[in-house]
Amino acid sequence: MAEIKKIGILTGGGDCPGLNAVIRAVVYKAKEYGWDVLGVKYGWKGMLNADASPLEIKDVENILPMGGTILKTSRTNPFKVEGGPEKVLENAKKMGIDCLVAVGGEDTLGVANKLTKMGLNCVGVPKTIDNDLGATDYTFGYQTAVQIASDAIDRLHTTACSHDRVIVCEIMGRHAGWMTVDAGMAGSAHWIFTPEVKGSVEDCCNMLRERRGRGENYAIIAVAEGALFSDFDVEAASRETDAFGHVKLGGVAEALAKEIEKRTRYETRHVVLGHTQRGGTPMAYDRVLGTRLGYKAAEMVKSGQFAMMASLRGENIEAVPIEEAVKELKTVPEKYYNVTKTFFG
Amino acid sequence: MAEIKKIGILTGGGDCPGLNAVIRAVVYKAKEYGWDVLGVKYGWKGMLNADASPLEIKDVENILPMGGTILKTSRTNPFKVEGGPEKVLENAKKMGIDCLVAVGGEDTLGVANKLTKMGLNCVGVPKTIDNDLGATDYTFGYQTAVQIASDAIDRLHTTACSHDRVIVCEIMGRHAGWMTVDAGMAGSAHWIFTPEVKGSVEDCCNMLRERRGRGENYAIIAVAEGALFSDFDVEAASRETDAFGHVKLGGVAEALAKEIEKRTRYETRHVVLGHTQRGGTPMAYDRVLGTRLGYKAAEMVKSGQFAMMASLRGENIEAVPIEEAVKELKTVPEKYYNVTKTFFG
Amino acid sequence: MAEIKKIGILTGGGDCPGLNAVIRAVVYKAKEYGWDVLGVKYGWKGMLNADASPLEIKDVENILPMGGTILKTSRTNPFKVEGGPEKVLENAKKMGIDCLVAVGGEDTLGVANKLTKMGLNCVGVPKTIDNDLGATDYTFGYQTAVQIASDAIDRLHTTACSHDRVIVCEIMGRHAGWMTVDAGMAGSAHWIFTPEVKGSVEDCCNMLRERRGRGENYAIIAVAEGALFSDFDVEAASRETDAFGHVKLGGVAEALAKEIEKRTRYETRHVVLGHTQRGGTPMAYDRVLGTRLGYKAAEMVKSGQFAMMASLRGENIEAVPIEEAVKELKTVPEKYYNVTKTFFG
Amino acid sequence: MAEIKKIGILTGGGDCPGLNAVIRAVVYKAKEYGWDVLGVKYGWKGMLNADASPLEIKDVENILPMGGTILKTSRTNPFKVEGGPEKVLENAKKMGIDCLVAVGGEDTLGVANKLTKMGLNCVGVPKTIDNDLGATDYTFGYQTAVQIASDAIDRLHTTACSHDRVIVCEIMGRHAGWMTVDAGMAGSAHWIFTPEVKGSVEDCCNMLRERRGRGENYAIIAVAEGALFSDFDVEAASRETDAFGHVKLGGVAEALAKEIEKRTRYETRHVVLGHTQRGGTPMAYDRVLGTRLGYKAAEMVKSGQFAMMASLRGENIEAVPIEEAVKELKTVPEKYYNVTKTFFG
Repeated sequence: MAEIKKIGILTGGGDCPGLNAVIRAVVYKAKEYGWDVLGVKYGWKGMLNADASPLEIKDVENILPMGGTILKTSRTNPFKVEGGPEKVLENAKKMGIDCLVAVGGEDTLGVANKLTKMGLNCVGVPKTIDNDLGATDYTFGYQTAVQIASDAIDRLHTTACSHDRVIVCEIMGRHAGWMTVDAGMAGSAHWIFTPEVKGSVEDCCNMLRERRGRGENYAIIAVAEGALFSDFDVEAASRETDAFGHVKLGGVAEALAKEIEKRTRYETRHVVLGHTQRGGTPMAYDRVLGTRLGYKAAEMVKSGQFAMMASLRGENIEAVPIEEAVKELKTVPEKYYNVTKTFFG
Repeated sequence: MAEIKKIGILTGGGDCPGLNAVIRAVVYKAKEYGWDVLGVKYGWKGMLNADASPLEIKDVENILPMGGTILKTSRTNPFKVEGGPEKVLENAKKMGIDCLVAVGGEDTLGVANKLTKMGLNCVGVPKTIDNDLGATDYTFGYQTAVQIASDAIDRLHTTACSHDRVIVCEIMGRHAGWMTVDAGMAGSAHWIFTPEVKGSVEDCCNMLRERRGRGENYAIIAVAEGALFSDFDVEAASRETDAFGHVKLGGVAEALAKEIEKRTRYETRHVVLGHTQRGGTPMAYDRVLGTRLGYKAAEMVKSGQFAMMASLRGENIEAVPIEEAVKELKTVPEKYYNVTKTFFG
Repeated sequence: MAEIKKIGILTGGGDCPGLNAVIRAVVYKAKEYGWDVLGVKYGWKGMLNADASPLEIKDVENILPMGGTILKTSRTNPFKVEGGPEKVLENAKKMGIDCLVAVGGEDTLGVANKLTKMGLNCVGVPKTIDNDLGATDYTFGYQTAVQIASDAIDRLHTTACSHDRVIVCEIMGRHAGWMTVDAGMAGSAHWIFTPEVKGSVEDCCNMLRERRGRGENYAIIAVAEGALFSDFDVEAASRETDAFGHVKLGGVAEALAKEIEKRTRYETRHVVLGHTQRGGTPMAYDRVLGTRLGYKAAEMVKSGQFAMMASLRGENIEAVPIEEAVKELKTVPEKYYNVTKTFFG
Repeated sequence: MAEIKKIGILTGGGDCPGLNAVIRAVVYKAKEYGWDVLGVKYGWKGMLNADASPLEIKDVENILPMGGTILKTSRTNPFKVEGGPEKVLENAKKMGIDCLVAVGGEDTLGVANKLTKMGLNCVGVPKTIDNDLGATDYTFGYQTAVQIASDAIDRLHTTACSHDRVIVCEIMGRHAGWMTVDAGMAGSAHWIFTPEVKGSVEDCCNMLRERRGRGENYAIIAVAEGALFSDFDVEAASRETDAFGHVKLGGVAEALAKEIEKRTRYETRHVVLGHTQRGGTPMAYDRVLGTRLGYKAAEMVKSGQFAMMASLRGENIEAVPIEEAVKELKTVPEKYYNVTKTFFG
């Protein structure tokens, strides 16, 4: 294949702790190979606008502890823009990009996959704070988000206990309950509601009544943003959208707290962790994982493994076809969720 | 005065990191004096119901790192209960309580003050996570809450920046803006709204426009729960109450975020830190302050300084009349708030 | 096989964050099965002394956030005690233990393996803060320790930079460099020394000289306790033993710092993280992993998978023969270490 | 007095969390006044070498969360350099510095005081991580350091307890025990040794024996670097110096641990927190205090309060003569230390 002289790198979709670790690793390894690196701004939008600037070691050497992405991000999808893909290919040629490293989720990787078929060689790095991508064990940023949520639940225990309150804690996860299940398990939540299993509010209330029965007058309920229920219509209350038509963070916890208070008459409060879960410095786990993924992505560029992504498999980072990652959402298996039920109540 | 044989201790009002430090210190010092200690449950409610149990060293030696209060708490005010005060005095006599250490805010301390005049000797320890009590420099728990809010704001910077978003962060404080001002200052917030000074949403929006003008496309706005505005009616949207008639946490941030988005068309999100600010392990500052206050309270019982409370004054813990603490709310002086304005924008 | 009525559980070897998560999960699942559980004290020593007491839900429901082990631990190996194994078998019978869950490292699991062959059914849960056990991807406690070390390195950067100093940071790991490599990678260390690869102090010093050459006057060096060197005899200085004949934590960092200062004349300091790395509350990752492992161990007892241990494999917890785990030390592969070299200097 | 057009700012002595908060606040307020600001490098050394560069808002707007000092620091004292003071005055004139803000400890402030008398107007900001400066309640950086030490002690409890060990934890403080006393109090240390009070190792060992007597087989001992003893000669073992003649961090903990193990035969370990205590991001308390002090320093320059320093007094920041701060070391009052004794054992 053609020799690589210059690569581009972009980050797309929601931000996530560890993105800078990936960027940094790609730049360091690329420089080792003697390549130029272009930092493309705002994900695919930057390819549509040819908005990019060179990245040198000095630009990235100190970014490992930083949350977010120095390249900024957007949800722009060139395939949803008139003549978008052609524009991206044209700009890539103008910029002299021989290969593009795309760091992002299902949407961003899907674009990378299609563009490769159209002639722009892309290598992917999977990113989702929700851990719901296939073909990889864990995604970077996830452990940091789980830790933030788990720390918050730890804090809620003592205040709920001191006041004999029920506190409902809303955790990120619209389509998959990974964060809620792991943070709930780590935080000793007394009940966990997820999008995968339709939960019963009445069963949860009975658990609360039993706890009161044995003198435990408080409880922590972990609920995923997108949790579903078998005996409670949360839709109206919790599915608002903002001025941009995005589904609004928050809503389910408030609705659920009111419902629980109504059914049990126990004083119930709610907390929505929201954006605090995705910002800030990445934990060591995500700094290491992001670094290893970026390093591997550069190796994949070198060896021409296009339309593939760097993926954590057990202890190793492997190259897998992007198709595998995007073909379906990775949700929490019932068997995994059932582990948490042993600790309910 | 009569020799002390047995004391009681209770915690009232909202919980706060460091309450256990106070309880632990009172018990250790009381045992040094050879006194028995009764732990009264649920604040004044426990005195109405004679709900208490003995506290020994073994009960408190490991509670210093624990948030909340092992004695539980409530907002019960005996003076708002038919025959309440008499019942408290009667139970105190039955329980053999020679003196009562009351740890709480304006309301709890006010009760202690009145009861002392009625014959039940009380010593106070001021407690408010909002730092809005007079006659003391800082109250324990406050620094922990400020740290939690400051950490959250740190996290919000990177996600807001990566997405070119404005994020409005709601911080505790219905009547005083201490937490919002200190956490906002510590977190490099770009604007701060408090209950003390009626803020202008339009001035804030102009700041946001100026930031965009110089390419800084994100911002963090810190707003107190009880913030007031000169050009925005937040009341309707943000002053809901729960099934128990308590003013609900949250509301102002959501309303303000919508208003800012409406006026500027900049994508705006909101976060309500809520109960995560008051739970969890106390920071060293509050463990030390709580320990020193509890120790002093026991000394005050010994020396018969009743109707007084232990108070931080510079580097020292002093005994001051409870009246001084409860006579008025300690709000943020304009001069203090003005320091933060230098860093706006 | 015989029906299970009562199981025992013990923790052996060095303590590690997450041990209580395992204990808690074993007890919860065992109670679900209707079994009695005996908590054996101080590892195998407790089996030699028949030192154990029943564990109920109330004993473990709140221990998830606690570091260390509520069962205490020791390094006692019954096979190194005259008539030890027989004594253990005899006591197991006396106590009515149908199966024993042994949580520990190579040594503890090896004992469990041998005892199973002698007639005491054992199930293992692998534990090593050094992550150097085979047949499992990661061990619980490891991520917490890496995070503590990574946080410390983050802190060292700013003080080293402000003073133009070199700081050598000693991290746990006598035989394997996992913690040093991961914490060093996460902490942007400028050089990493491990036990697996004999490092050159002179190469490290040349890196320091190059950094000075481009105006970067500080550096952080991560060194494993058991690091080996090609051009520096660290033995004399850094391999002391305590009054009990155990190799003493610390030593290599101090010796290396002196050597670097001698060779470069750059002001050099050292820090030994020591025991702070193994104590304290487990991170969410280790709470979840420990919980899943303990849950699986109970299932393995139920299904009679003796002389096997619960092991993390990718996303799953599987049962693997203890023999596989103990047959050899899992060290850092050269390929993994080489990733870090890209970031040296 | 002459109108201010340009000011200089420098940081001297050991680094400390919060220095950047001071620098940032001075720059923001100076710009509000319309002044130019010169950032002088490496403390007084930068004045001797005329090593400085302009500071603008963009240079400091994001440094609040950063530990250390962006201006670097040194222990250079111009009065110990031949013709030093004259050189400083000459360079100040050359650089057009109308007033110099000196952030540092006893030594740095003493120089500022003398130089003011010689004609270079200086304003001081007190800095010591040891909290041992007079004329101010607390110094910035101190609370962060105490928190780090307190967190470390929290971690040590569980590992010491799991192994029935005594762990001796060495905390910063050569001449004053503030950090050790506060971190020891916050960390529930079972004994505390400071430089102010000659402690008895035998009394400490008797406490350990009593704890064993009641089945508490572990203990945490907090010891200050410069702790003194009535019945143990620690000098030889713990007062080494490095190649630059600086007293070496560490030593006393190791010597004390060996002595305790020798006397009691209890397994004893030691940890030296060292440089991890002074680096890293400042806590909210220190970010706010540093910001307020820097803001006040700029106001003092404006109002011509030279040879004075900004000082925390209760809730206020006041201007006090530098002489007051440097005239004597602020050590821990016996009354304060005695509070901790109530919790020994």
